[in-house]
Amino acid sequence: MQITLIETVERLEQAKNLVITAHVNPDGDAIGSSLALRHYLVSIGKKVRLLLDDDIPADFSFLPGHELFERPKDVSDADLLVVLDTSIDRIGTVKKCVNAPVLNIDHHISNDSAADYLYLDAGKAATGEIIFALLQKMQAKLTLETAVCMYTAIATDCGFFRYSNTTAFTMEAGAELLRFGVKPNEISEALEKRPWLTVKGKAAALQTTEFFPDKKIAIAIVTKEVLGECASTGGLIDEIRVIDGVDVAIVVKYVEDGISRVSMRSKHTDVSAVALEFEGGGHIRAAGCTIKAPLLEAKQLILTALKNHMEANCDA
Amino acid sequence: MQITLIETVERLEQAKNLVITAHVNPDGDAIGSSLALRHYLVSIGKKVRLLLDDDIPADFSFLPGHELFERPKDVSDADLLVVLDTSIDRIGTVKKCVNAPVLNIDHHISNDSAADYLYLDAGKAATGEIIFALLQKMQAKLTLETAVCMYTAIATDCGFFRYSNTTAFTMEAGAELLRFGVKPNEISEALEKRPWLTVKGKAAALQTTEFFPDKKIAIAIVTKEVLGECASTGGLIDEIRVIDGVDVAIVVKYVEDGISRVSMRSKHTDVSAVALEFEGGGHIRAAGCTIKAPLLEAKQLILTALKNHMEANCDA
Repeated sequence: MQITLIETVERLEQAKNLVITAHVNPDGDAIGSSLALRHYLVSIGKKVRLLLDDDIPADFSFLPGHELFERPKDVSDADLLVVLDTSIDRIGTVKKCVNAPVLNIDHHISNDSAADYLYLDAGKAATGEIIFALLQKMQAKLTLETAVCMYTAIATDCGFFRYSNTTAFTMEAGAELLRFGVKPNEISEALEKRPWLTVKGKAAALQTTEFFPDKKIAIAIVTKEVLGECASTGGLIDEIRVIDGVDVAIVVKYVEDGISRVSMRSKHTDVSAVALEFEGGGHIRAAGCTIKAPLLEAKQLILTALKNHMEANCDA
Repeated sequence: MQITLIETVERLEQAKNLVITAHVNPDGDAIGSSLALRHYLVSIGKKVRLLLDDDIPADFSFLPGHELFERPKDVSDADLLVVLDTSIDRIGTVKKCVNAPVLNIDHHISNDSAADYLYLDAGKAATGEIIFALLQKMQAKLTLETAVCMYTAIATDCGFFRYSNTTAFTMEAGAELLRFGVKPNEISEALEKRPWLTVKGKAAALQTTEFFPDKKIAIAIVTKEVLGECASTGGLIDEIRVIDGVDVAIVVKYVEDGISRVSMRSKHTDVSAVALEFEGGGHIRAAGCTIKAPLLEAKQLILTALKNHMEANCDA
């Protein structure tokens, strides 16, 4: 059942013993929103546990309270399960560990509406923005801790105010959080820092970049050898995406012998349609799939599919 | 003579025939602020010319009015020369071409106060922010064109709201400009795009990165060969700066036989002090110098100077 922001406030105020969770493979929005809401609710006397069916990436260890996340365990006395930044289908085993009504707060238009109570605002760039609006509505006194978590949630989901989902409200929320002492440079530095081997791996993989018709498609491969030496090539696809003239950036990565992982980013082309042909998914501008073929063969398969798609849609 | 914002408004309102200029080697703030002020003043019936003693980088060709900049030429009938984002010592030959009182608007604390009238606000992240405050004070009706120029001025000087100079006011100005239809993704994409050869050159140069005591110093070289093949390695130093554990990132670049250019970025160390030893300059966190020595020798010289400086200051 979809509810309003006021009704969401009421649900939270009535609860005494809450569990907060978010999606597996958690990002800054999932982690930051969970912590911000937790910090505020605890400050007004609620009992709150944070359960998450996944690890918290080390990048987020600067977030106050990051160590409070626990792996799913049976919680018998909770009176509300708050699910953030996803439908309940992506919270892993948390659902069966907590026997309580589900309050779902999300900004993804794809939310499946299966929760008992759903507050959905797809016009917001981040669930963190909804938490910001919610705490304003609750007349919360913000602390620096809560502000840092909320700022991180918002900034990571809108590419530090550069993506198309950034609205005037997004930036006003950011402005207000800076007033509580958030240091944007410290947060961006903490999130941008990369191990040398990742930078080295990215540089090595970049050298393999090839271009197809009119430079519109750029494709790089990450071989078993590069992964063996460098472990990671994080940031590679963004590097390819910004090359002048490129519409679709593709990275094909070795997973294991005979299995390759394809990531795609685009400026205009609907890459999710192409990913779907290989049983993958994603958004129009960012999608991926796994292909059961060795690296070079997978590269040819995705290139052919993409070219056909672009020709059929007069994008090429 | 330092004046207030209100007095700045009065100077602008009294003038009928203005020349606007900014510093040579112009950046987004210099170009965007000049255009934003020009667009508004023209809209209220002023005659305005834009003179600049340098080229406008092609990256800024998305800015409405970028083609209006002229190289310095004698202007006999101007009644005010507006100098933006610099002291009058960095406007090249514009000063001697325009015989009019100088109104200087700047946010650099290093401004030499030599102008007839100076409005200085060193608390602002960008001159674009001052122009924003000025147009608010003038109760200007903003157009999308003016907003795009002002947003670009602000965003480029605060690293798209990520640098330490970003304040709540900076983000509120950004929020207000988005309301006029500015698309942050279009502006960031226009500014982030890079030719493939630049990306390739950067990746090649990255492979030369070496690390010194405890990984605090990371240094890469850009050889004559890499420059011959790729022309540019733009963005290289930022890539090195974000490597985990690095305090000082250095790039030593071939200029001509026996001459090398050194760029430095730091998180803690005062690199301008080291640059000064080689008659270079800059800020505490970003500085550079030219060394009359071949690449590898220059690399050793700057490394030794930096290590000595860090040891003397207990930074190492």
